[in-house]
Amino acid sequence: MTNPSTHPFDAAIALAPERAGQYNGSTHPAYGNMVGPFGGVIAAALLNAVMQDPQRLGEPLSLTVHFAAPIADGGYTVTARAVRTNRTTQHWYVELLQDGAVAAFATAVTAARRETWQTLDAVFPQVPEAATIAPMPAIARVAWTSAYEMRFIDGIPGAPGTPSESSASRLWLRDQPARPLDFLSLAALSDAFFPRIFVRRPQWVPIGTVSLTTYFHADAAQLAAQGSDPVLGLAHASNFRNGFFDQAAELWSTAGALLATTTQVVYFKQ
Amino acid sequence: MTNPSTHPFDAAIALAPERAGQYNGSTHPAYGNMVGPFGGVIAAALLNAVMQDPQRLGEPLSLTVHFAAPIADGGYTVTARAVRTNRTTQHWYVELLQDGAVAAFATAVTAARRETWQTLDAVFPQVPEAATIAPMPAIARVAWTSAYEMRFIDGIPGAPGTPSESSASRLWLRDQPARPLDFLSLAALSDAFFPRIFVRRPQWVPIGTVSLTTYFHADAAQLAAQGSDPVLGLAHASNFRNGFFDQAAELWSTAGALLATTTQVVYFKQ
Repeated sequence: MTNPSTHPFDAAIALAPERAGQYNGSTHPAYGNMVGPFGGVIAAALLNAVMQDPQRLGEPLSLTVHFAAPIADGGYTVTARAVRTNRTTQHWYVELLQDGAVAAFATAVTAARRETWQTLDAVFPQVPEAATIAPMPAIARVAWTSAYEMRFIDGIPGAPGTPSESSASRLWLRDQPARPLDFLSLAALSDAFFPRIFVRRPQWVPIGTVSLTTYFHADAAQLAAQGSDPVLGLAHASNFRNGFFDQAAELWSTAGALLATTTQVVYFKQ
Repeated sequence: MTNPSTHPFDAAIALAPERAGQYNGSTHPAYGNMVGPFGGVIAAALLNAVMQDPQRLGEPLSLTVHFAAPIADGGYTVTARAVRTNRTTQHWYVELLQDGAVAAFATAVTAARRETWQTLDAVFPQVPEAATIAPMPAIARVAWTSAYEMRFIDGIPGAPGTPSESSASRLWLRDQPARPLDFLSLAALSDAFFPRIFVRRPQWVPIGTVSLTTYFHADAAQLAAQGSDPVLGLAHASNFRNGFFDQAAELWSTAGALLATTTQVVYFKQ
């Protein structure tokens, strides 16, 4: 039974252990997409299997998710295994099964972080503070858009007939209701950027993320420091061709720490 | 037996079928790294198992490689299986084993490309032609640097004591000896950018790619059109921290077509 005080995100990514490395989960109506669940919450559920494993070494460093087939609303099974464990890194393979077939799978790296030389080459942009920007209204028929507060600086998805010369967006975003940031919600936020084709092209077509890769730059202390404040997201695409496009994004803390970088390849119909 | 006319790259990624979905390969001295083989040729060998599979659907769309453990010089086994096959996409899982343990593994997507709306948002830069730039001398103790012709426009790795304010490089590069570009050599080229830390920081430290993701934007016809002419590579990093950094790159055809985008997360010692 879900505790009534549980945040919908935690309910949506909850995994009940079935046996070692195997869990049962279920899609959640708060994170529904046009069809099936929002991919970000599936990414987070797959990472959650790694996070829950008692043999896990360190914190998430990378996550690649393959959305291999449509996921139906309802229950699923997740299996996770450490393919290789080293002294400071651990490599994972995770599958999500429905009706005995793999609907999604992921690879991940967890790693022991330590103090080293450091420098940040990416640039935190000059942007208005989140509080000065009105949140975008949620899209009624896309439930997961109600689960995030999105305050667009620019690059709001265009309505048909309003072409854009850029595929880029900048926005403040956070869980709604507010929830302290952790690796799992950061994994989901990596997929919370609208498909770039909806920004670039004034026509709505069926789309679906094929594969998503996220690198976690933050450690747990940085995530804890961020709390539930909005993170800054910067997303853009480089190429739309032959039924696929790529998009890349950065996620920044309010204080200007780079939390994650992410890239994905997306199918589009025509 | 290797045909004496075989290009060293083809010899290095050759896989001899053992049974369905299982192959035998071997590292090649022409693609040696400081320790073990050059990661790019391992990425290509793993993709080669997908390319050789009679059940393959379409052309490579994405490839994620995990360098899970050091690979020793010598033989290895590769296993590949289609995890899920759809109408237009196919998702793969591939492992490289040495002495029964997984030393590297990969996921990939192959896809049927088709004509759709298209637009290119990434910008092909104004740069001098390859022929006007002298190739960088190979690094004697790093064999694989002799296997690529690299003509740097800027961002040549610094010698100790010459710090750079940028982690970016722009260079023309191609196989040496020349070889017509295909998906396999493009996969290897995605890892042929020197680790960004050697550009950014005036100190050589042990490094190793942990995970590498490449999106293939080109189709086979574009690769054939490129032939063995140099491709333009643009690489940069965004963040160095806690023993890891990320780097991203674009690979462009001579004519200004975006061939691939790639990103990787790299371990560094201190």
